Amino acid sequence: MMKFDIVRDRLLDGLNDVMKAVSSKAAIPILTGIKIDVTEEGLRLTGSDSDITIQSFIPAEEDGEQIIRVIEPGSIVLQAKFFNEIIRKLPTNDVVIEVTGHLQTHIRSGKSEFHLIGSDADEYPLLPQVEEDRKFSIPGDLLKSIIRETVFAVSSSESRPVLTGVNWQVAEGELICTATDSHRLARRKTSLENLAGEYTAVIPGKSLQELSKILVDGSTPVDIVLANQQVLFKSGNVLFFSRLLEGNYPDTSRLIPSEYKTNVTVNGKTLLQAIDRASLLAREDRYNIVKFSTDEGKVVEISSNSPEIGKVEEQIEAIEVDGEELKISFSAKYMMDALKAIDGQDVVIQFTGSMRPFILKSAHDDAIIQLILPVRTY
Amino acid sequence: MMKFDIVRDRLLDGLNDVMKAVSSKAAIPILTGIKIDVTEEGLRLTGSDSDITIQSFIPAEEDGEQIIRVIEPGSIVLQAKFFNEIIRKLPTNDVVIEVTGHLQTHIRSGKSEFHLIGSDADEYPLLPQVEEDRKFSIPGDLLKSIIRETVFAVSSSESRPVLTGVNWQVAEGELICTATDSHRLARRKTSLENLAGEYTAVIPGKSLQELSKILVDGSTPVDIVLANQQVLFKSGNVLFFSRLLEGNYPDTSRLIPSEYKTNVTVNGKTLLQAIDRASLLAREDRYNIVKFSTDEGKVVEISSNSPEIGKVEEQIEAIEVDGEELKISFSAKYMMDALKAIDGQDVVIQFTGSMRPFILKSAHDDAIIQLILPVRTY
Repeated sequence: MMKFDIVRDRLLDGLNDVMKAVSSKAAIPILTGIKIDVTEEGLRLTGSDSDITIQSFIPAEEDGEQIIRVIEPGSIVLQAKFFNEIIRKLPTNDVVIEVTGHLQTHIRSGKSEFHLIGSDADEYPLLPQVEEDRKFSIPGDLLKSIIRETVFAVSSSESRPVLTGVNWQVAEGELICTATDSHRLARRKTSLENLAGEYTAVIPGKSLQELSKILVDGSTPVDIVLANQQVLFKSGNVLFFSRLLEGNYPDTSRLIPSEYKTNVTVNGKTLLQAIDRASLLAREDRYNIVKFSTDEGKVVEISSNSPEIGKVEEQIEAIEVDGEELKISFSAKYMMDALKAIDGQDVVIQFTGSMRPFILKSAHDDAIIQLILPVRTY
Repeated sequence: MMKFDIVRDRLLDGLNDVMKAVSSKAAIPILTGIKIDVTEEGLRLTGSDSDITIQSFIPAEEDGEQIIRVIEPGSIVLQAKFFNEIIRKLPTNDVVIEVTGHLQTHIRSGKSEFHLIGSDADEYPLLPQVEEDRKFSIPGDLLKSIIRETVFAVSSSESRPVLTGVNWQVAEGELICTATDSHRLARRKTSLENLAGEYTAVIPGKSLQELSKILVDGSTPVDIVLANQQVLFKSGNVLFFSRLLEGNYPDTSRLIPSEYKTNVTVNGKTLLQAIDRASLLAREDRYNIVKFSTDEGKVVEISSNSPEIGKVEEQIEAIEVDGEELKISFSAKYMMDALKAIDGQDVVIQFTGSMRPFILKSAHDDAIIQLILPVRTY
């Protein structure tokens, strides 16, 4: 038994968040549902695919305004897909939800009435247990940037599962996030005031992508709890749980070259567009290779050649070119991903020869380092 | 040999139009290309999938402004997909295109240079021949409406190919467009001043959908030429050719009932939303059936029942209900399609009993008639 009425738009906002955890191919049938718990304090929605669990709380009252009128507290699980669509299409902004005997659930709004058969909330899995000892917080927009700058570089292959995650390492007051698919690597270092201790955790790339979608813009802090097998992100009234990946993350610190033979400083956006055009004719190709060469001046030439279709030559004026002349080939896709992560600023590219990994970073700071392995073509 | 330079944005606009005719699964290889013909007057682009052919003309000069500088006239065929992407991504708004020996084509803009291998323009199929004796014109926005109000009702099955088209019939100064998939029918009558003679043509639904995408909004007239095997639409500098469907279109005039037992007048938008909600739980169902019933008052009840999921009841207040009480079942999808075609106005629904086809039309005029066959469930 349960009965309450609620402002429809607020229920919809909560559903939008928790729906991101619900998969139509759920491992256990009850996870195709959303759990609704109503107490005098408010309504709690829970969605989960067993890897990710999202919980959203809607308070009964907020800033003196009544959002939910609780007539009888209780719990029920309703089919996520139908419940979400029903709430979205209701004719008025007032909804009454009532559970009568045998899990019969009635949803009323205006002259519209839905009768659904729910599932027993006791059968819904419990929330993961998370001990709160490893805890820090990051402004929401900074967290979103950190995710965007690293997550694209995780491996999409399950052959080494630990590489499908981003390694979060806390050490010496810094958070160091690293992702690699063994052809390229993205690393982001962030100094945080409230960071103590030394520990690491590998967070699945997919979880970070979903988290990014529910983070609101702005600098409101997100509390992060890194437990042994779970990570919890708390943002306002939303809790986001993800399992962590098991296994040892490889030590990537020695991959990053410490000395360089050729240094190219160039506008990131100009380079991105030139690479994009140079790779146009090679899109069919899995590796999508472009050539990059410097001469004695400041002109960088980017080119590609697809024998059956044609070839492209691009010249860009670099801001600075130092060191040895260089010819190198690499994946246009990896280069474009890296440039997008650095986001339109002037970038420094540091090479150690045409067969060695090279790195990209912003001309202004070392917070982000993108490393790419070249391809043998010259 | 050929050489010209052109304002990039104008070339892109033309490409946007002709690309709609190009299919990646072309019947003959040269149709994966776009034909470019340059004369002193300007540039003509042609794209075709052999059913539809679109031609766009860009004048060398327009309103005293030079758009193309022709250095040497000529023709070439270039791979549509690459050519379009290259032009879209060029770094400046000035493009030079040059064909040298052996169909070598060079595209230059800023410091970007593409070299493509073209195909011989003489191998590109000729345009369909269209005799201009059956000719009339329709304002562009009206033509778009006529297409939108009828084309959704064509059959998607190839079992009777002629039903995959819309029947255009010219008779007594009227254009009558009819589409049916044998479960529902859409008919639109339009009186036109410049209409003479009596003739019919069945235009493929797919062609009309593509045509609709390239018609610009506004009342600029579109000239229409209905020949024996082809129809030609001329809109500004764009020519759109489509083959016609062969075979006799069925006589549908007798399907539309001439007398009615129950008349319901209702706001179209209110009914559309109620049907949409009532069908929410039955979406998996191929037929997506809802029940519709009137009582002695003005209340119409719409309901559906999916035994495993639940049921929905919707009540709406009709503007007027006349005649016999009625219970009828029909496809929610067909009903929603028909209501969208009538577009939010008050609609009149005329029934002749629960097992007979019923019609919908605007409360204001008879220009559009939508007919739906009911389903046996009561």
